[in-house]
Amino acid sequence: MGRENETGRIEAFSDGVFAIAITLLIIEIGVPHLEDEPPGTTLPAALVGLWPSFLAYVISFLQIGVIWANHHNRFRFIERSDHVLLFLNILFLMCVAFIPFPTALLAEYLDGTAAERETAGVIYAGTLAVTAFFFTLLWLYAAANRRLVDRNLDPSVLRAMTRRYLLGAVAYLLIFLLAFVNVAASLALIVALALLFVLPEPGEGTRKVSPARARERR
Amino acid sequence: MGRENETGRIEAFSDGVFAIAITLLIIEIGVPHLEDEPPGTTLPAALVGLWPSFLAYVISFLQIGVIWANHHNRFRFIERSDHVLLFLNILFLMCVAFIPFPTALLAEYLDGTAAERETAGVIYAGTLAVTAFFFTLLWLYAAANRRLVDRNLDPSVLRAMTRRYLLGAVAYLLIFLLAFVNVAASLALIVALALLFVLPEPGEGTRKVSPARARERR
Amino acid sequence: MGRENETGRIEAFSDGVFAIAITLLIIEIGVPHLEDEPPGTTLPAALVGLWPSFLAYVISFLQIGVIWANHHNRFRFIERSDHVLLFLNILFLMCVAFIPFPTALLAEYLDGTAAERETAGVIYAGTLAVTAFFFTLLWLYAAANRRLVDRNLDPSVLRAMTRRYLLGAVAYLLIFLLAFVNVAASLALIVALALLFVLPEPGEGTRKVSPARARERR
Amino acid sequence: MGRENETGRIEAFSDGVFAIAITLLIIEIGVPHLEDEPPGTTLPAALVGLWPSFLAYVISFLQIGVIWANHHNRFRFIERSDHVLLFLNILFLMCVAFIPFPTALLAEYLDGTAAERETAGVIYAGTLAVTAFFFTLLWLYAAANRRLVDRNLDPSVLRAMTRRYLLGAVAYLLIFLLAFVNVAASLALIVALALLFVLPEPGEGTRKVSPARARERR
Repeated sequence: MGRENETGRIEAFSDGVFAIAITLLIIEIGVPHLEDEPPGTTLPAALVGLWPSFLAYVISFLQIGVIWANHHNRFRFIERSDHVLLFLNILFLMCVAFIPFPTALLAEYLDGTAAERETAGVIYAGTLAVTAFFFTLLWLYAAANRRLVDRNLDPSVLRAMTRRYLLGAVAYLLIFLLAFVNVAASLALIVALALLFVLPEPGEGTRKVSPARARERR
Repeated sequence: MGRENETGRIEAFSDGVFAIAITLLIIEIGVPHLEDEPPGTTLPAALVGLWPSFLAYVISFLQIGVIWANHHNRFRFIERSDHVLLFLNILFLMCVAFIPFPTALLAEYLDGTAAERETAGVIYAGTLAVTAFFFTLLWLYAAANRRLVDRNLDPSVLRAMTRRYLLGAVAYLLIFLLAFVNVAASLALIVALALLFVLPEPGEGTRKVSPARARERR
Repeated sequence: MGRENETGRIEAFSDGVFAIAITLLIIEIGVPHLEDEPPGTTLPAALVGLWPSFLAYVISFLQIGVIWANHHNRFRFIERSDHVLLFLNILFLMCVAFIPFPTALLAEYLDGTAAERETAGVIYAGTLAVTAFFFTLLWLYAAANRRLVDRNLDPSVLRAMTRRYLLGAVAYLLIFLLAFVNVAASLALIVALALLFVLPEPGEGTRKVSPARARERR
Repeated sequence: MGRENETGRIEAFSDGVFAIAITLLIIEIGVPHLEDEPPGTTLPAALVGLWPSFLAYVISFLQIGVIWANHHNRFRFIERSDHVLLFLNILFLMCVAFIPFPTALLAEYLDGTAAERETAGVIYAGTLAVTAFFFTLLWLYAAANRRLVDRNLDPSVLRAMTRRYLLGAVAYLLIFLLAFVNVAASLALIVALALLFVLPEPGEGTRKVSPARARERR
């Protein structure tokens, strides 16, 4: 009970931040005011002109949604907490809560000059890379010597998860570097990576069973 | 316990998104500044002039409230989760969190030209139709072959629920088409559909009992 | 367990709306921009000029906080839910989530002309009165014939609670009427009513015991 | 169960306010619009010019994150609640939810004149000092004569915690006074105090054990 609570309130607080960050994305999209548009612009035309905002909304929503799902899956394995974990989680959430800013930047400059598009794309991909970095750091801290994870967890499963998170962090780093060269390709890969999440994880069944068993043993 | 948690955090996250989307509706309504109004406008007159904003607030609040209640009722029957369900739920929430945008559009253009009103109404009803579509998709995925629902659930109850969700999706599609012809009628039907929710569901007693029983059996 | 959940998610959703409405109050207070102020205005002077915003923030924060605490206390006695309760709760939350608007109105016009101050005060107090009305309606629906409350609850305790809520609704109605005559007095009474909450309720001990006992019996 | 719930919903509501206040920080940072900048400004240059906003975001995020963690740790020892505790917690949350305002003020005037920087710094540090004051008051109320804390708690542990909170309140008061003299030093100390949190508390092990034991005894 005490244990459950220990990470339970971290998860609840993190879920709050995720839910708010993801829902705030929409308030960055202002309704078009026809009086501020070139004369003769119709409402449908003005709305079509907002395509960078809608695109940025969809990409960031998917992204934060998948980060949430990963955070959620990870904390099913983290059973204890300490001050360092709390602090790393706060740094991680600081990145997640920051995402609406590069999203708005992307929405504003995706149809700007090539240089502006590059700047916006680099900052967007960079934010995701830093987020992935802290996510991985948090996991490495919790998993090293099974510091805060379930002590009955199969070491090979643990290693597979660690490998997966390291791979993810490297992937986001490459996507960040790609943004300097080609923003569109970088964004496409970001969406592709989010869609990959739908695939079942290799060995998902095993992992789902093991923590459940550990809980029964308590 | 593990099972309960599995959908528990999805519900908690979804509730967060619902609560934020519904509460953000109010910040779209700006306080009138008399210095920006035609000279001689009194504060009560300026407030009365905000009627499209208040109307849009009430309609969207009811709408999101009833969608929340339906989501809540549905997840009482969904017991397990997988990556596809998580993903479909994220797409569904992406629609819910989008609702403040068409709401603001409606508030802005409900007293505009006929063409503007039509555009705003079509996008508003269209958003609700897409939301209902993903809602139904999520349910069909969970219910097919009792993939993620309670395995002890009476098949006839399951079929009745599926029929109900399909009917709802079709109703929203028709309301969307109606918006091209008559925005006021479309909005009136949207409110009527939300109010229908107050009626007890046919066989509500039966359904409430069956999952409870299933839980006792565990 | 099933029972607990039945009102549990209503409470969680309502708590979300309360928490967001109360925290959104601050974003209505814009940071002063000295370039928009009369020349020579210092930052401290500009901040002092924001007093109506700070006052409105404090009053509304206390108000929503106390409404939350009352909602919380009430739902300790409501054990079951149905579609009508869900709907009444949505209407009630619609009023709570609306509060940031009259708060911003008050902040804007508290130092306006007498007529503007009256309009803002009347709408502010009126919003609270309508909120209290739906709060009372929800309770009357749940408590009538012990429809949704603990069936072991002492009838005299139930009657005392009903009396208290009716009294509260009448008090807010009078405060609303007072706002037409004297806004300052109306606001002072609103604060006083919120502060009254700190006093222990008569018979609090008894009431806290009875639902606990009922739970043990289950 | 009843007991757990008693403070459980206070924690849930508080977590909501914390999560929203911390996530709202980002919406104060507006995306730069090059057309409003001096001609020839590039997007990277405009973003670098936002450094006070980014700095204020990081400081306030850390600050609210650490306040949340402290609130979370404290409520592991508070087991019962009453109307006064609820009210003190509302006053405390009123300060936490206010933090986005002085944060925006700091972001706006950190690169202003010396007088403006001082005003912004004093209000920022002052808000944190008042927050710490209400935090300490809440704890003193709960801990005095073990009014609302675990009655099996070791008195020496309780005294150590009280000493720590009083020390924290005094530290914030000094930081507030320092802001009148040197804003940079004041902000540096605020960050340092937040980073101190990462250190394990003296006797953390002991404290974690004792409430757990007390729970087992019930």
